Amino acid sequence: MANVFREVENSVTAPRGFRAGGVACGIKSDGGVKDLALLISDVPCVAAGTFTTSKTYAAPVQVCRTRLQSGKAQAIIVNSGNANCATGKVGLRNAYRMTELVARRFGLPEELVLCSSTGIIGRQLPMEKIEAGVASIEVSELGGYTFSEAIMTTDTRPKRIALEFEIEGRVVRLGAATKGVGMIYPNMATMLCYLTTDAALEETWLRKELKAAVDDSFNMIAVDGDMSTNDTCILMANGLAGNTPLNEQHADAPIFREALRRVTQYLAIEQVRDGEGAQKMMTVHVRGAKDKPDAVRAARAITTSPIWKCALAGGDPNWGRISSTLGACGCELDRDSYDIFVGEVQLMRAGLAADYDQDAAKAAMAGDEVTITIDLHLGNAEATAWGCDLTYGYIDENSLYTR
Amino acid sequence: MANVFREVENSVTAPRGFRAGGVACGIKSDGGVKDLALLISDVPCVAAGTFTTSKTYAAPVQVCRTRLQSGKAQAIIVNSGNANCATGKVGLRNAYRMTELVARRFGLPEELVLCSSTGIIGRQLPMEKIEAGVASIEVSELGGYTFSEAIMTTDTRPKRIALEFEIEGRVVRLGAATKGVGMIYPNMATMLCYLTTDAALEETWLRKELKAAVDDSFNMIAVDGDMSTNDTCILMANGLAGNTPLNEQHADAPIFREALRRVTQYLAIEQVRDGEGAQKMMTVHVRGAKDKPDAVRAARAITTSPIWKCALAGGDPNWGRISSTLGACGCELDRDSYDIFVGEVQLMRAGLAADYDQDAAKAAMAGDEVTITIDLHLGNAEATAWGCDLTYGYIDENSLYTR
Repeated sequence: MANVFREVENSVTAPRGFRAGGVACGIKSDGGVKDLALLISDVPCVAAGTFTTSKTYAAPVQVCRTRLQSGKAQAIIVNSGNANCATGKVGLRNAYRMTELVARRFGLPEELVLCSSTGIIGRQLPMEKIEAGVASIEVSELGGYTFSEAIMTTDTRPKRIALEFEIEGRVVRLGAATKGVGMIYPNMATMLCYLTTDAALEETWLRKELKAAVDDSFNMIAVDGDMSTNDTCILMANGLAGNTPLNEQHADAPIFREALRRVTQYLAIEQVRDGEGAQKMMTVHVRGAKDKPDAVRAARAITTSPIWKCALAGGDPNWGRISSTLGACGCELDRDSYDIFVGEVQLMRAGLAADYDQDAAKAAMAGDEVTITIDLHLGNAEATAWGCDLTYGYIDENSLYTR
Repeated sequence: MANVFREVENSVTAPRGFRAGGVACGIKSDGGVKDLALLISDVPCVAAGTFTTSKTYAAPVQVCRTRLQSGKAQAIIVNSGNANCATGKVGLRNAYRMTELVARRFGLPEELVLCSSTGIIGRQLPMEKIEAGVASIEVSELGGYTFSEAIMTTDTRPKRIALEFEIEGRVVRLGAATKGVGMIYPNMATMLCYLTTDAALEETWLRKELKAAVDDSFNMIAVDGDMSTNDTCILMANGLAGNTPLNEQHADAPIFREALRRVTQYLAIEQVRDGEGAQKMMTVHVRGAKDKPDAVRAARAITTSPIWKCALAGGDPNWGRISSTLGACGCELDRDSYDIFVGEVQLMRAGLAADYDQDAAKAAMAGDEVTITIDLHLGNAEATAWGCDLTYGYIDENSLYTR
């Protein structure tokens, strides 16, 4: 299936019928930085979203959850610099007001406009700035990159992709942009991710495939183990490619599924590569687990262990810390029969130190990308998680954020 | 009850009939540093322990669990520098061998000798060094401080205490020493903690009170959220004070309980104060929780959030991170009715930013000890947890540990 996916330009505006843009409206304290982004489809889309499971979810998450019950959306307005979280009734009113401004200016039904916010928690949105921003923002078919820049907060670079492939012999595209490199430990969602496609999809299938893709991508990354209040991932399909709407029985369903997996995993990995302070990325494969939840638990536990993240930063093949994290994480484990590898080097065999070459182990820890493989020898379940090291940079980024 | 507890010298050898000592036997790479410690009672003790719930528990944990089924112990041999964990059958044999060496030299029944290890995971103990160490170690009634030094690993200072109080009008003492400042997120146990008393205690009561005290002290601290493979907390009561053995009905039971609470909480807080890289200590009180598990969950979540620990390091009253951690931790929470305070300053009222003085909030975050209070307004349960900030020092300590 490898060759049928071609990477193309413009991320979320790569699919036909999507326009986007971004402006600096002054929400972020460093003026001139883009902080308002807009994405619009020419026609209403079939749409679904996955969101944070936090009980302190932000106002815009509430708006999206409510409006996406219809399974339809046409536009998303996003601001960065302010999370509109812990802002009560005023915050909720402001979130709806953002969508109303967009609906009026672009002549859209208000209930088809979604909104997201990301940034500092606990401050009310500066609505005058947002009103001026919505009044001045321009959207175009080439605006996908601008959109991907305007949603950033502590990200050092935009994260975006678009793939082109064929459904029923027609060329279709899937575009996406994501942001978020701190407070990253998504659960049923990610920070902010917007996916667009001109393929036609049936609503129930779209929901199911989005959730499955998010579970194997954004729900498997960790920068710090802190889940955000604003995690949001939305897929909008406008159907302009004219194909028979995709569902479970459609012969080309596997192609769209594969495209969605590639896009979401690519962006998830981009997030940990750009993790706050990150200098090394780790991929953790757990196999031989009793069941899938156990495999997920073990893989994610390694990616969030501060003491192992420090060892990774130091290039230190200190597998005792992987072993102790496995023991503590709650997964089924037989103390006398699990293996640990770093790259190709087996550090631990059947619960004991393997007789490995120290230099080879250090070499396997030395690069920017380190792969840890764990075999629990208990069953057939497996999972892959992605994370990063813990460095001074993470502390620098987070010790003075509100100042 | 305040004045009945007097602090006295010699920690674990403060109670009558206990002798202890320590030597440098060469287990730690930096020669000359004490790494073998021994604690002996003149007579057999009623004893109990709590241990790590990790599935990769170390060999000495297995020895202690097995032998403490009898409810009796008379001596404990402890080495630092090597955890004797992930060492398989050889490791278990070595752990038993340590107790055999002590039993022979001091003429004790082998089954009354316990052992602990702490340090690097995955290496076999250097048994020749340990044999030489046991042969040369001296114990005395003044050796409590030496013992407390010999059990340290990355600790910057020993952690020890002894209290004197009265039971049935007789003077009794409770002494204790603990170690451990990294990989600290105990669950049903702590790193290594040894408690001694000359009070007589009934075995079932001793077990129950030890568990309750550990639950409210060591089980409520976190340096990094990583649970150790070797967590052990043992209380030995030799009864030499001659009192009627304490049980639930004994009129002076509350006095011993209070002493045990004071000693365990004092040492637990000492551990986070000395947490790897720690410059600030935090006390997190959660009240108004639906039930006790929810209060514990919320309080511990705040102490382990990397992003909040960084804010603490920077003296930044960024309560949005407390709010988001509460939302993510799984405790029952009403988004519109919880409060957050730092020191006396209310940062959040009913789920919204309170109208607080920024300078006062920064002042409340500025000292070495910061208190966070959260009121969930849902019930009457409460809990207190202790933690520390996340600094460069933690990373330095943990990025190059095995080199």
